[in-house]
Amino acid sequence: MSQPEGVPAMEYRFLGRSGLQVSAISLGGWLTYGGHVDKEGTFECMKTAYDCGVNFFDCAEGYAGGESEIVMGEAIKKYGWKRNDLVISTKLYWGQAFGDNIVNNKGLSRKHIIEGMDASLKRLGLEYVDLIYAHRPDRQTPIEETVRAFNHLINTGKAFYWGTSEWNADEIAHAWRYADKLGLIGPVMEQPQYSMICREKVETEYSLLYREHGLGLTVFSPLGGGILTGKYKNGIPDDSRYAQQSVEFIKGFWQRTGKEQWDERIQKVNKIEPIAEKLGVKMNVLALAWVLKNPNVSSAITGASSPQQIVDNCKALAVLDKLTPEIMQQIDEILENKPPALTPRF
Amino acid sequence: MSQPEGVPAMEYRFLGRSGLQVSAISLGGWLTYGGHVDKEGTFECMKTAYDCGVNFFDCAEGYAGGESEIVMGEAIKKYGWKRNDLVISTKLYWGQAFGDNIVNNKGLSRKHIIEGMDASLKRLGLEYVDLIYAHRPDRQTPIEETVRAFNHLINTGKAFYWGTSEWNADEIAHAWRYADKLGLIGPVMEQPQYSMICREKVETEYSLLYREHGLGLTVFSPLGGGILTGKYKNGIPDDSRYAQQSVEFIKGFWQRTGKEQWDERIQKVNKIEPIAEKLGVKMNVLALAWVLKNPNVSSAITGASSPQQIVDNCKALAVLDKLTPEIMQQIDEILENKPPALTPRF
Amino acid sequence: MSQPEGVPAMEYRFLGRSGLQVSAISLGGWLTYGGHVDKEGTFECMKTAYDCGVNFFDCAEGYAGGESEIVMGEAIKKYGWKRNDLVISTKLYWGQAFGDNIVNNKGLSRKHIIEGMDASLKRLGLEYVDLIYAHRPDRQTPIEETVRAFNHLINTGKAFYWGTSEWNADEIAHAWRYADKLGLIGPVMEQPQYSMICREKVETEYSLLYREHGLGLTVFSPLGGGILTGKYKNGIPDDSRYAQQSVEFIKGFWQRTGKEQWDERIQKVNKIEPIAEKLGVKMNVLALAWVLKNPNVSSAITGASSPQQIVDNCKALAVLDKLTPEIMQQIDEILENKPPALTPRF
Amino acid sequence: MSQPEGVPAMEYRFLGRSGLQVSAISLGGWLTYGGHVDKEGTFECMKTAYDCGVNFFDCAEGYAGGESEIVMGEAIKKYGWKRNDLVISTKLYWGQAFGDNIVNNKGLSRKHIIEGMDASLKRLGLEYVDLIYAHRPDRQTPIEETVRAFNHLINTGKAFYWGTSEWNADEIAHAWRYADKLGLIGPVMEQPQYSMICREKVETEYSLLYREHGLGLTVFSPLGGGILTGKYKNGIPDDSRYAQQSVEFIKGFWQRTGKEQWDERIQKVNKIEPIAEKLGVKMNVLALAWVLKNPNVSSAITGASSPQQIVDNCKALAVLDKLTPEIMQQIDEILENKPPALTPRF
Repeated sequence: MSQPEGVPAMEYRFLGRSGLQVSAISLGGWLTYGGHVDKEGTFECMKTAYDCGVNFFDCAEGYAGGESEIVMGEAIKKYGWKRNDLVISTKLYWGQAFGDNIVNNKGLSRKHIIEGMDASLKRLGLEYVDLIYAHRPDRQTPIEETVRAFNHLINTGKAFYWGTSEWNADEIAHAWRYADKLGLIGPVMEQPQYSMICREKVETEYSLLYREHGLGLTVFSPLGGGILTGKYKNGIPDDSRYAQQSVEFIKGFWQRTGKEQWDERIQKVNKIEPIAEKLGVKMNVLALAWVLKNPNVSSAITGASSPQQIVDNCKALAVLDKLTPEIMQQIDEILENKPPALTPRF
Repeated sequence: MSQPEGVPAMEYRFLGRSGLQVSAISLGGWLTYGGHVDKEGTFECMKTAYDCGVNFFDCAEGYAGGESEIVMGEAIKKYGWKRNDLVISTKLYWGQAFGDNIVNNKGLSRKHIIEGMDASLKRLGLEYVDLIYAHRPDRQTPIEETVRAFNHLINTGKAFYWGTSEWNADEIAHAWRYADKLGLIGPVMEQPQYSMICREKVETEYSLLYREHGLGLTVFSPLGGGILTGKYKNGIPDDSRYAQQSVEFIKGFWQRTGKEQWDERIQKVNKIEPIAEKLGVKMNVLALAWVLKNPNVSSAITGASSPQQIVDNCKALAVLDKLTPEIMQQIDEILENKPPALTPRF
Repeated sequence: MSQPEGVPAMEYRFLGRSGLQVSAISLGGWLTYGGHVDKEGTFECMKTAYDCGVNFFDCAEGYAGGESEIVMGEAIKKYGWKRNDLVISTKLYWGQAFGDNIVNNKGLSRKHIIEGMDASLKRLGLEYVDLIYAHRPDRQTPIEETVRAFNHLINTGKAFYWGTSEWNADEIAHAWRYADKLGLIGPVMEQPQYSMICREKVETEYSLLYREHGLGLTVFSPLGGGILTGKYKNGIPDDSRYAQQSVEFIKGFWQRTGKEQWDERIQKVNKIEPIAEKLGVKMNVLALAWVLKNPNVSSAITGASSPQQIVDNCKALAVLDKLTPEIMQQIDEILENKPPALTPRF
Repeated sequence: MSQPEGVPAMEYRFLGRSGLQVSAISLGGWLTYGGHVDKEGTFECMKTAYDCGVNFFDCAEGYAGGESEIVMGEAIKKYGWKRNDLVISTKLYWGQAFGDNIVNNKGLSRKHIIEGMDASLKRLGLEYVDLIYAHRPDRQTPIEETVRAFNHLINTGKAFYWGTSEWNADEIAHAWRYADKLGLIGPVMEQPQYSMICREKVETEYSLLYREHGLGLTVFSPLGGGILTGKYKNGIPDDSRYAQQSVEFIKGFWQRTGKEQWDERIQKVNKIEPIAEKLGVKMNVLALAWVLKNPNVSSAITGASSPQQIVDNCKALAVLDKLTPEIMQQIDEILENKPPALTPRF
């Protein structure tokens, strides 16, 4: 580990109410590794992240049809990192790439959780992951079966902690209900989207879960899929990550929420940029620091197609102290999307 | 019990996954009894409802500062109805009218639940209610304390079943978590708003609760606070219930959601009215029948300031069979507010 | 208590796996007390039974629309029997006689169990019963609710033990499942029909319940509704209990199972009578003794419209020892209805 | 997987209240594979089934003294099917073929369940099965021991789900009672006989289990052991499956239930055949579709001694929609064996 110059010291946070510490900034393989970033590029990114103090690398069986796990696993081996220095995660839900008859190669049945875990570990070249996620709610499998199956993974040493990704609050509450009832381990973390432009689930819906279960968050898309970097303010440039595979994503966004809303978001970013300038940082750094300011966020999972992006992102760690209540309020006033607090006794 | 002419036979439904049956149409005291409807008017309404087969009468400590419980209790005594023929409910949360120092005269602490229940029973002149509701979530009292206190009411014979009103799905799930953990009785019913113009909570958010706990619903405002009667299509008439106390309510609505949305709703009602005409019923009858078509609705709580309104509402019972899938779809297309189903395994 | 001459000493048996002892022969009010037997007749029968050592008197809210409880309660008061010398039971299910709107005045909801118990105790003039039965399964009320409600009766001192009547084995097993899960009291006794001509439920279906839960039986119709007294062998006489209200019962039987089966049963009785003669007892005495020979029977509930019948029935107690394996086998060979044992490991 | 021409797309159903999906039509080894169908024939049948979309293959330690497991395991290896595409089951109870002293090589003791499972997996050449069944109740082993032992298999990764075959409803309820009490996994499926001529257990006895535990059924003999194919209407042909090993079976049937009842069944089949003709399908296709019409049936296990039979059976999938309530009623009227519904609250 040779910390690159100008990069602040990494901050480590407990993963919710657990004893595990994850780097506040982490690196994920979604849309990049195993996909449009080639093997060498992946290795370089992971090396740089590791050198910046990132200990948490996030993956999923569904990323790039399993290729993401393969290449990330290779990086770990290539650099000879010690297993106990790393927090490796993967997620189960979309295993359909791995069979001819997909009916049972997806979802959160006991069968897929166990078979999927084994296949993931094989691709990663690991004996266990630290974190295993349910990569969506499976509303057709009884939650009890899912809770039991994740506990089976923990009991057989294939994972240390389990959590969810994009579950509703009441689904997580039901998972805890079964865990409590059966004396099993409940989901300790959730992986939602969270950024300046996507706040409701994290800031309102999950409130009770932080208090009741100490839920920790490992959030994805902290830069709003790139919007919060400011790079789209003059349209979609050719050299962006989207240039290759995500023009469709943006078009999809427009279809789902309207071009109008996209433009509105771009305008908000334009209004926030002066605040970033005043703080002497780039927009993406401010946006990431803003996410990390939320104490329920254990880690912000960033994507990167070049080492430089990682170095840049890590600068957010130096900005947290500068985000005074006044500045946070200014930002809220521009964003106009702060969800109302759940009303207290009234 | 002397069924008024032209009123269809009452339908009784199980209250969620319980053994108690409630009339599909019930009568509530909100905004009416103890308030702008005088004692004689209240008696007449309750008598007519009873004669129409209504067995479920809904009240709350907070309705008209306790007056609603007093007058509804008097009606029960006046007519000599047998206690076992009735399903009487009340709700605890806003007891502040009954003390000088309001800090503990509200909310869902053990203290207010027990003291509030005793005060309600005294006002009602009853030894027990059938149903007791938590009249909002109390986000400052531990849910475990609330669950234990409602079980205390059941164990001491002051109530037979307990439920919630306007809780979020995850709050109800947590109540069940504590009930399960402690071997206690969980909330069997929830009292949300539900009508053609207010659907999301009932049709989406609570989905898992129906399956997991057999949650039953006793819905309020099935006529959307009057909008769905069509009576506001030419503005707010002077003789409406709103004329007395609810012009402020409508203004409040405009403040909260905008005049624009009010007008939009009025227009939707105007488009649905021809469907009512084709079925040969009034708009309010169609709107009520539409609510009762949802199998998770155990009872629709109606308000009435005159016996005639009750007789009219009961006609909805004869319309359910006429609401074919085709008609339901036509209505959905006009309303444009059918919440998306929670996605299945995808 | 002045034991009538010629009556053998009463035998007391533990009620299943409980610490309560009931007389092997008990007296029930079905079809008699409050019905075609007048008040004086009832008093005399109960007095004679008491003098013969009967301590268990069986009733139900549904017998004679509540009249049975009233008159049996009067007898207890009239003779000044000590409460602790008696085992009094009643049963809840059919309370519909006691309200205008029957929807909740029946079945096994929490509401009816609590309201029904209070009404029964009032009719009986007692503060508590020893045994309270669920007088049928209620397949629309969750079994958990029923288990909790019967425990509520026990917890509030209104009953000491609870049981079932005419439930299927799996329904009783489910009641125990909830009782165990919740740390509550399960059903200790079941009241089925049992006699030489009705054996399957008792001898086969309930097998596991004896072993698992120590289920005790208080059986009704031990004389097969009169067939086993031999009194119908020459047709239906005018002076029988059936003469008044049960010719319909027999006709109903014929409709349900056919005249042919009735005749077949009469013929079997005719073949068994010589065995009774050899033992020096009447047919009804043998039939009752045969029932009591089954060790799972805690008590055989007899009906009687005259004191003499009670005295006669009690003679069965002296016959048990004479029912050797050889005689039991002879009877089985005539009856041809011995249910096959549940196969052991095969 | 190359779907044969003219075969409708396979339907997959959740196995009761679990997250596992099984093909509605499945293939079992009973009386065929390892028995009178040779190895090549078995391979061809399994290949055809797989190509038709069958993912569930059913076996048992007792089928053909273990030979069935051996040959079915060879087929899986031969065709290189992916393990996660398959749902493989076996059943434990009759392991007596595999030892000299049979006392502990049978039944449902912990010893035989664990030893039997290991032996089955070895014969199958697999690391785990998806489903493991208790192949009868063992009324001499405590149910708790059996429940614990099947959970041991799941916990050690040798099976994913466990269930029962031909247990009584109260035995299954007791298994759930122990599972609940101990926080263990209960039996998720039962394998009973079910067909037009064998309905009671499935349609009546298990009712409560569907509601309480979401019991799923994988039914055997959906064609009534061949009677429902119509092939016996002119007597027993020489080329039938019975020709080889089952003339004894039929004679056994006659002994047990009488030649008369056999003839009666044949006559009923003759009356139903015209309905099949009107629907344009063969009798066996109608009979199988009728079984699949029951929503509690997760899969119908068919036997086949030739690939053509499988292709024929799969045609039943296209018939389900044609079985209107009217046709189902016609069939019921011919069969005259529809079991009465368990009475609701009365």
